[in-house]
Amino acid sequence: MIDNNKVSQALIDSLPYLRKFKQETIVVKIGGAALFKENSKESLIADLCYLITVGIRVVVVHGGGKDADQLSKALGREPRFVEGLRYTSPEDAEIVEMVFSGKLNKALVALCTTHGVKAVGLSGKDAGFIEIEPRSSSKGEDLGQVGRITKVNVGILNHLLDGGYLPIISPIASLDGHSTYNINADEVAASVASAMKCGKLIFMSDVDGLMLDDKLISEMDLKEIENLAGDSRVSGGMLPKLQFTTEALRSGVRDVHFINGSLPHSMLLELFTDKGVGSKFTYSRRKRD
Amino acid sequence: MIDNNKVSQALIDSLPYLRKFKQETIVVKIGGAALFKENSKESLIADLCYLITVGIRVVVVHGGGKDADQLSKALGREPRFVEGLRYTSPEDAEIVEMVFSGKLNKALVALCTTHGVKAVGLSGKDAGFIEIEPRSSSKGEDLGQVGRITKVNVGILNHLLDGGYLPIISPIASLDGHSTYNINADEVAASVASAMKCGKLIFMSDVDGLMLDDKLISEMDLKEIENLAGDSRVSGGMLPKLQFTTEALRSGVRDVHFINGSLPHSMLLELFTDKGVGSKFTYSRRKRD
Amino acid sequence: MIDNNKVSQALIDSLPYLRKFKQETIVVKIGGAALFKENSKESLIADLCYLITVGIRVVVVHGGGKDADQLSKALGREPRFVEGLRYTSPEDAEIVEMVFSGKLNKALVALCTTHGVKAVGLSGKDAGFIEIEPRSSSKGEDLGQVGRITKVNVGILNHLLDGGYLPIISPIASLDGHSTYNINADEVAASVASAMKCGKLIFMSDVDGLMLDDKLISEMDLKEIENLAGDSRVSGGMLPKLQFTTEALRSGVRDVHFINGSLPHSMLLELFTDKGVGSKFTYSRRKRD
Amino acid sequence: MIDNNKVSQALIDSLPYLRKFKQETIVVKIGGAALFKENSKESLIADLCYLITVGIRVVVVHGGGKDADQLSKALGREPRFVEGLRYTSPEDAEIVEMVFSGKLNKALVALCTTHGVKAVGLSGKDAGFIEIEPRSSSKGEDLGQVGRITKVNVGILNHLLDGGYLPIISPIASLDGHSTYNINADEVAASVASAMKCGKLIFMSDVDGLMLDDKLISEMDLKEIENLAGDSRVSGGMLPKLQFTTEALRSGVRDVHFINGSLPHSMLLELFTDKGVGSKFTYSRRKRD
Amino acid sequence: MIDNNKVSQALIDSLPYLRKFKQETIVVKIGGAALFKENSKESLIADLCYLITVGIRVVVVHGGGKDADQLSKALGREPRFVEGLRYTSPEDAEIVEMVFSGKLNKALVALCTTHGVKAVGLSGKDAGFIEIEPRSSSKGEDLGQVGRITKVNVGILNHLLDGGYLPIISPIASLDGHSTYNINADEVAASVASAMKCGKLIFMSDVDGLMLDDKLISEMDLKEIENLAGDSRVSGGMLPKLQFTTEALRSGVRDVHFINGSLPHSMLLELFTDKGVGSKFTYSRRKRD
Amino acid sequence: MIDNNKVSQALIDSLPYLRKFKQETIVVKIGGAALFKENSKESLIADLCYLITVGIRVVVVHGGGKDADQLSKALGREPRFVEGLRYTSPEDAEIVEMVFSGKLNKALVALCTTHGVKAVGLSGKDAGFIEIEPRSSSKGEDLGQVGRITKVNVGILNHLLDGGYLPIISPIASLDGHSTYNINADEVAASVASAMKCGKLIFMSDVDGLMLDDKLISEMDLKEIENLAGDSRVSGGMLPKLQFTTEALRSGVRDVHFINGSLPHSMLLELFTDKGVGSKFTYSRRKRD
Repeated sequence: MIDNNKVSQALIDSLPYLRKFKQETIVVKIGGAALFKENSKESLIADLCYLITVGIRVVVVHGGGKDADQLSKALGREPRFVEGLRYTSPEDAEIVEMVFSGKLNKALVALCTTHGVKAVGLSGKDAGFIEIEPRSSSKGEDLGQVGRITKVNVGILNHLLDGGYLPIISPIASLDGHSTYNINADEVAASVASAMKCGKLIFMSDVDGLMLDDKLISEMDLKEIENLAGDSRVSGGMLPKLQFTTEALRSGVRDVHFINGSLPHSMLLELFTDKGVGSKFTYSRRKRD
Repeated sequence: MIDNNKVSQALIDSLPYLRKFKQETIVVKIGGAALFKENSKESLIADLCYLITVGIRVVVVHGGGKDADQLSKALGREPRFVEGLRYTSPEDAEIVEMVFSGKLNKALVALCTTHGVKAVGLSGKDAGFIEIEPRSSSKGEDLGQVGRITKVNVGILNHLLDGGYLPIISPIASLDGHSTYNINADEVAASVASAMKCGKLIFMSDVDGLMLDDKLISEMDLKEIENLAGDSRVSGGMLPKLQFTTEALRSGVRDVHFINGSLPHSMLLELFTDKGVGSKFTYSRRKRD
Repeated sequence: MIDNNKVSQALIDSLPYLRKFKQETIVVKIGGAALFKENSKESLIADLCYLITVGIRVVVVHGGGKDADQLSKALGREPRFVEGLRYTSPEDAEIVEMVFSGKLNKALVALCTTHGVKAVGLSGKDAGFIEIEPRSSSKGEDLGQVGRITKVNVGILNHLLDGGYLPIISPIASLDGHSTYNINADEVAASVASAMKCGKLIFMSDVDGLMLDDKLISEMDLKEIENLAGDSRVSGGMLPKLQFTTEALRSGVRDVHFINGSLPHSMLLELFTDKGVGSKFTYSRRKRD
Repeated sequence: MIDNNKVSQALIDSLPYLRKFKQETIVVKIGGAALFKENSKESLIADLCYLITVGIRVVVVHGGGKDADQLSKALGREPRFVEGLRYTSPEDAEIVEMVFSGKLNKALVALCTTHGVKAVGLSGKDAGFIEIEPRSSSKGEDLGQVGRITKVNVGILNHLLDGGYLPIISPIASLDGHSTYNINADEVAASVASAMKCGKLIFMSDVDGLMLDDKLISEMDLKEIENLAGDSRVSGGMLPKLQFTTEALRSGVRDVHFINGSLPHSMLLELFTDKGVGSKFTYSRRKRD
Repeated sequence: MIDNNKVSQALIDSLPYLRKFKQETIVVKIGGAALFKENSKESLIADLCYLITVGIRVVVVHGGGKDADQLSKALGREPRFVEGLRYTSPEDAEIVEMVFSGKLNKALVALCTTHGVKAVGLSGKDAGFIEIEPRSSSKGEDLGQVGRITKVNVGILNHLLDGGYLPIISPIASLDGHSTYNINADEVAASVASAMKCGKLIFMSDVDGLMLDDKLISEMDLKEIENLAGDSRVSGGMLPKLQFTTEALRSGVRDVHFINGSLPHSMLLELFTDKGVGSKFTYSRRKRD
Repeated sequence: MIDNNKVSQALIDSLPYLRKFKQETIVVKIGGAALFKENSKESLIADLCYLITVGIRVVVVHGGGKDADQLSKALGREPRFVEGLRYTSPEDAEIVEMVFSGKLNKALVALCTTHGVKAVGLSGKDAGFIEIEPRSSSKGEDLGQVGRITKVNVGILNHLLDGGYLPIISPIASLDGHSTYNINADEVAASVASAMKCGKLIFMSDVDGLMLDDKLISEMDLKEIENLAGDSRVSGGMLPKLQFTTEALRSGVRDVHFINGSLPHSMLLELFTDKGVGSKFTYSRRKRD
């Protein structure tokens, strides 16, 4: 129970942010707890509803996770590795698609609907809006049905947003109309944000943001990110995220945020408070907003 | 300084209200402190900005107050009374119009602009949108240039709202294109709200709401208002306000609120919290929302 | 290789049909071979492309088939039966959804895209457009997560059609935003056609149409269908199809067709030739068109 | 009677052409048999209806023919010649206009209406859409009221096309609002096609196309046309047609076709089959489409 | 040369008429001198331009006259009479169409264009907008190709008016897409005015209006017109005009006017002055306006 | 009473002007008699109504006059002068605003409404559409609350014009949302006309136009105006008006007119007659139109 003064203060404090973000498009990549833990998911959906209700255009991209592995295992399939990377066989791709596009995507869609948001699930196959080519390992070895995005056709996304619908994207695409390919969900989010020239791209995971020497980096600009190249403090998982961040900033996305989906309402707090709760990356350093 | 949890809680708690009020039109009658005390006025303007930014259509009606009396006195004019009611001579009407439409109205307009809201001041003369007839005293005696509203042409209001402008109305109209008439600002607010079939009509004054036996009445329905007829606990000033309230409710206005403009952000608190801070009147009793 | 005279004759012969069907909406339920046999599927997709290109609004509903059973079996699940009807456990529903919405639906979508048609896959969960209640057996026994349609919200379908997209519907819906329910695909097609007041509803299966005494019934009206009640010549599978047909005709669908998806281009032949190739049902008998 | 397989094959084969031509504008110059022989005319109108029904924007230009000469003769007028070219006196111009704009144009319009196409007859006088200057003979001698097009104002054409009407143009214009001038119908067609940046300009006459050494030329590009300059095999009548063709191609018309209006459905066959039946001219050589 | 006071007075006096007629549609039947005498025609066109420029929607219907007879005679054709009415043979119809639709119509169109008005000539054949049946003599004898209007499809007229074009109608229609029929131009004007629910229908001829006992009738209502039945003072030519007038008034046309096209600017004077210059007929008598 | 010939002549003579001015925007600065003398005002309003009715977009700017001085005197305030220029104290500014925006502006608005024109009164504060900075004397001394225009935001003006409303502007603005500033009404008119790229800017005062040696200058171009620099014949009041004229012409306003508001219907006469009645200024000399 919050006292009245704090309620009105919070609403009034949100006003400059509401003004700034109104009519903008925000792409949110959901991963980790926010996708799987019930209360984190509820908190996230509430935040999305809030953003949409105040007039922000939101696009969601989700990843997958252990569900696909579990189904594979249940079906008795043995994973195969190429240079330490998991190889995606046609059967793997089929399982991944069923879990991502059939189960996780539709579960998010249904949950949004119960909160009054008209969500529509898409994969890159729908309207052929994500175009890909096969991705190889860094040494050029075949990784199977893993794709690299060559183009995002934003027509269907804008059409749905214009109609008041929330697009929720599963990171799957088709190479030739017959083969199913798996894509990195962070890459999907960054490519969609770049193609739509979004105001914000938000990567939601299970960590608070970019941590250096156990300290959360609250803000960083493009130059500072580039200075991190080769910095051993940046853990493996952060490297590709930072790479997508720099690409998005260079393509015209105004801000990229890393936030923790386990923290209740981290999205609202990051977007609607002065200090935020995660890491914010911009092309060049300026006051947080 | 509010802690993060409370910020996010407040925003999320406002969601059902945002959903409900979105695209609705709200008429706010501003009187008393909210019109004259600097910090009350700033708080009010901030609230108006918030409502407009989240997509609510707002129309403001203001009253006048002591400014007109002061100018009359400075010009050496003697007030004249009919059955205890002040008679409005042509000279009085001219002074009232200069103070209301020229000074108070434009001051509110200018203040809104500094808060980023494009306000446009109107009086009932503009586009002839308020049509009136002369009002007599209850015994039929001539009160001079005091009008009773016969029709509100909402075209100019909707045109301005559609363009993203905030109409601010001064309670003055013209009888025949030449004579200037003064109108009760509460009557203007109620007539405009009825003509626009508004979701809410808010009367802002210097008291918390309807007080009976020193207790604030939080909610009341039409039947209960009617039962107050002849109730000696209802003070003189409240009687016409309750009369306008019943007329508005009967004309299709969903809710009428009485709130205290001296209380900071009373409008947001009344509209965006479960218990509210003033009195709420509805056609028939139901849960507050 | 067709000679020129036949080409021009065929195009000119199609003119009255083009005129009649233009701007109409047609719902096509795809089942059986058209969904699974490669050349039947290619022929079907070509027909859909043709319809869309000449300006007909098309909505596709697909069923499932043996894929879900195979996945169940691979996962070692034992089917359970209630009065001879298969019971749908939560695990079954999950498998059905993954196969229907994740695999079959997206495969159709991708195939359309390769033919230049921008298809978008939907299940009843998307935008919550299919509302359901649990369906029991005729004796009132619980069948698990099997739904009966209570309402179709056509907004998302019309929005996609207006944007030039082809909606492809998987017969799955959500009861409360959490539980996944399976629905009869014929029921989905009939309910969508009724809600949209379509010109035509086409049931595509592996038989030529309604067969009585080994003879294909080319045309039948509502009264004649009703006279078939209790007629032993109508096989089990045909009964519910005829029931959906009568409901659709009573709801304002102009024509219902049964056609054979194994017959190449059966949809074009049924729609664009005088004699057709399947069975056509209308409210009251009139010349085929 | 065509068998079903051929019907469906023909429709499906037309799909790539339908896709390509949809929303394009095609200008068809009708001359010779297609204008005067009853069955050729019926075949032509059917083809036009087909094109319009599948969503192609069509503009028709017709020439005249012997009718004007017959009326002249019946009125006892003697033709006068300048350098072998017929001189158009004011009386001649009046007769030509009555026959072209009053009789032939309205006959085509009425015939289209019976086929369900809402045609509207225009001459260059309507909305003053064709602007002209007097044309002299090559030696500069006065040819009377014969015009050369200086400008085509496409507003009225697009307005009619947008409303779903088929403009049918008679090759007559006014020099100053008082004098009536005759224009070469091929020039009208080419100028309209150029001004509208049409996809196709079709010259329909009584020969199969461009014949060289008794062989029909199926395709030719701009350079090849230019190489024909001075080629004695090109008969007199073909020379101006080829000249209009090169001007149209240079002005942005994609394809120019010469087809034989006596051949039934030659327009559909030329446009919707791979080999076509006439001559097709393009800016630079590429595969027929 | 008019002095300034009179100029400004005239403009200001026209204001109430401008207000009243703005956005209205007026149908003007032009006959007699206005069609054939050069200065009357110029005066008429100037009046039409004025009406269109101030925002009135104008539709013109013209008759024919002696031109058709002259051409018939020049071609050596003998008129044939049925009960004193001229019989229209197919050859007569062809001549009438060439003269009306080809010569007179296009001449008016071209003249308007020189005055800056974008006119478009139509006959009833265009877009098939006038539907007819054969008309017989009062004794039921065949009159040849003379039509009676059964329906006016106003779509093309409104489409042209919406685009800022002035439709000019020639009184010719087609019975079945092949035969050409002549229609009474007054009937065309009245039918078009009725179908469009016009504000005014104006019959322009060579007399000042309805004359009774050598006196111009300035105003008359429906009842008064009906009282004229059998009145020997009403000359033959006036009878059908009065009949069309009563039909138009009953169909919702507000005013019908008879004016003299020989009188310079009679249309402006009738419409923009208090007393008018012709006869005005209304459903029921009221002050002229 | 004007005879008919003169009426029709006047209307027809106005046609080329109607054509030329249609859809244009005209800014009219009203001062002097037109603002205060009853019959001049009525004549002016009639002219404005005429312009609006024939489709011209009109914006009015009014000045003030002696009313503000009278109120100041009645309130016992002593004027203070800086270099001979009146100093505007905060109290002066308040009085000026009350008189200009509250009394004069609304009186004009109400008068227009009685003539059927939907006028809406604005000051520069409304929607913050006039942005200013403080103006100093030529020697840089503080003049108090007198503003110089830095920007005109034409959005609200165009929005009102598009809705069919007549904006009437009071020459008052706000510096920071709190302080009220007085602006030269001629400057407001010129700045608005420049910002809107108007066709005409009309300065209406109590003199016939620019007088040199007691002769009215009928036309002058920019170069000629510049040659007047230092010409002693140009009286003090004319100097700033000519300065605003040159600025407006350089900013793209086509014509600037000086006319006498005491002369009845001077606006119509200046705009709709060949010779006009005032002075007309253009960028470069050409025939009056």
